[in-house]
Amino acid sequence: MTDGFGLDHLPYGVFSVAGGPRRVGVRLGDALLDLSALSDRPELAAATLNPLMALGPQVWRETREQVAFLAESGSPTVPLSEVVLHLPFEVADYVDFYASEHHATNVGRIFRPDGDPLPAAWKHLPIGYHGRAGTVVPSGTHVVRPSGQRGAGDVGPSRRLDLEAELGFVVGTPSPPGVPVAAADLADHVFGVVGLNDWSARDLQAFESAPLGPFLGKSFATSISHWVTPLQALDAAWCDLPGQDPRPADYLAPDDARGLDIDVEVAVGGSVLSRPAYSSTYWGPAQMLAHLTSNGASLRTGDLFASGTISGPERDQRGCLLELTSGGNEPLVVDGRERTWLDDGDEVVLRYSAPSTSGARLTLGEVRGTIAPAHP
Amino acid sequence: MTDGFGLDHLPYGVFSVAGGPRRVGVRLGDALLDLSALSDRPELAAATLNPLMALGPQVWRETREQVAFLAESGSPTVPLSEVVLHLPFEVADYVDFYASEHHATNVGRIFRPDGDPLPAAWKHLPIGYHGRAGTVVPSGTHVVRPSGQRGAGDVGPSRRLDLEAELGFVVGTPSPPGVPVAAADLADHVFGVVGLNDWSARDLQAFESAPLGPFLGKSFATSISHWVTPLQALDAAWCDLPGQDPRPADYLAPDDARGLDIDVEVAVGGSVLSRPAYSSTYWGPAQMLAHLTSNGASLRTGDLFASGTISGPERDQRGCLLELTSGGNEPLVVDGRERTWLDDGDEVVLRYSAPSTSGARLTLGEVRGTIAPAHP
Repeated sequence: MTDGFGLDHLPYGVFSVAGGPRRVGVRLGDALLDLSALSDRPELAAATLNPLMALGPQVWRETREQVAFLAESGSPTVPLSEVVLHLPFEVADYVDFYASEHHATNVGRIFRPDGDPLPAAWKHLPIGYHGRAGTVVPSGTHVVRPSGQRGAGDVGPSRRLDLEAELGFVVGTPSPPGVPVAAADLADHVFGVVGLNDWSARDLQAFESAPLGPFLGKSFATSISHWVTPLQALDAAWCDLPGQDPRPADYLAPDDARGLDIDVEVAVGGSVLSRPAYSSTYWGPAQMLAHLTSNGASLRTGDLFASGTISGPERDQRGCLLELTSGGNEPLVVDGRERTWLDDGDEVVLRYSAPSTSGARLTLGEVRGTIAPAHP
Repeated sequence: MTDGFGLDHLPYGVFSVAGGPRRVGVRLGDALLDLSALSDRPELAAATLNPLMALGPQVWRETREQVAFLAESGSPTVPLSEVVLHLPFEVADYVDFYASEHHATNVGRIFRPDGDPLPAAWKHLPIGYHGRAGTVVPSGTHVVRPSGQRGAGDVGPSRRLDLEAELGFVVGTPSPPGVPVAAADLADHVFGVVGLNDWSARDLQAFESAPLGPFLGKSFATSISHWVTPLQALDAAWCDLPGQDPRPADYLAPDDARGLDIDVEVAVGGSVLSRPAYSSTYWGPAQMLAHLTSNGASLRTGDLFASGTISGPERDQRGCLLELTSGGNEPLVVDGRERTWLDDGDEVVLRYSAPSTSGARLTLGEVRGTIAPAHP
């Protein structure tokens, strides 16, 4: 059995066989567990995880128990080689945060060399923005190099195409308008976790972003893993945050906020470029959720919020090429090859692993994407 | 018959009667045209306009002809007083632009008094950002005053709650990923136009927005009209743009770009505060659409993109309180009452009108909203 996809994990995805209808599956090793034994559960015959996710944490727990029973009792499986995997859920709203202090500091030094690298609000709240939900694509989808304005009137294919290694959190249970969600209620609302690559065209982004933030530099594509790891599978991965000073406001639950000990690996063209550690991220997931709803914004099933680029304190823990090459000024040399930005044909693979309650490690769903040439 | 909702208009909405199912209706005067005579059209029995909008411009034209025939032949109508109106379409992605030069200049002077009021890229491309689709609400929905960080760690209800008078464009026909939509193809993709109020908490927005743009200062609510005016009904409203210098890049179709001669009225508590003219807006709708997709971002049925605050050159043409009060420093006095920001209980009404092919004027759907007290 492939490591990391054992009985302690059981992530959900959506698959089809030979052009048949899409339905929910659970990964077990190199195979999919056939859930048709659970024929009394129409939400598992759905084409997305949304109907299951909408049912809330009690049903998620019961379903996980039923799935574990099926897996342990040798229920039939389908080899992954015989299925097509799809986008696992329909994305409602997509919010991207900027929660890694190392990332924000590195980027601030590159873009604002004479100023304070961190924006004034950065340590008071998790800064975030809305991205384009309609261009979230599953792992394996080719990413067409975007074109746009690289400077005033200078239109053409991006010359500074980048990846961003992130972790995404998928909302199951909605919340009513006008009522903030408490940080303590994370597990009541968040169904699970996906790997996420927030593709970024740095030249388009730099020209367009003042004063309303990133737009076309990000909106062409965001890739997520095929597999959604249930939050329950990460019980052993919770860890302390690196420490918050000044103390955040009460709604950000400074005494209780935790992080996740998830290791990330960034590979391009088969070479590992860096190994960011999500445990070094300043703002935790419950803090992002509480902040996102603190103004009364409601949640919908399928909302996706992401960490922002995960970067650790060391140079080889940086989660994007912008940081790894100091803004493109210092090419990386990896496996004998010099590299600055992404070239056409480059395949990017993000891999994630976390401690498991079994004492082994979980392998979260990987995120793959290959750069296709710009539209002519 | 109520002015502005005659045979030259025929806007679409979604209604229900006495708790029955939602379905598509067309407004005619103070009544709704019963479309059940078109029983061969299941998309008109849908709970949103999305199925109709997805069918594309040929079907939109045919449907409008059928509806006009029904209206002219005295088909039964239901008084508006007997129906409940709903959100007319399911919003896919919501993008808000910043297309009025007068607005951007006024805001730039307030927020950056010592710098160039317009950002460097402003005249080269229509600046925009993604907003929260899940909190777009129909006219009449109460808006709960948002809370949040008004400054570092200073958490509480917004003290600087504002309106923004905008026009929204509703996408019907989707586009494939990786392929930009030409400005000339606006009418193939845009189904119609709605009135839009982009509620804004200026204190939250000012603290959070660097460097990724507005987030919680906007995401609590965006109100749109119940009625979607078909683009076809606005044939007589197209006008020249005020003029673009420097000449924009070719994909922004500088020789063909046009604006819309739509007059807006902003009223609070029954007093008219301003009368912005959309015809004075720098970037036209086809330019916004072409820019939005220029990086290959795909369109989905239900995508909504908005103009940003509509402000004209005169003081009494400014489309938000931020501008009307010079950042809150110069209260307005209207109908004997001094006013700066929105108070609990204030009702905001945005009204829109446009020239019609009949020589009369169309009244677009109004946008109402009353401020409810902050969540305790």
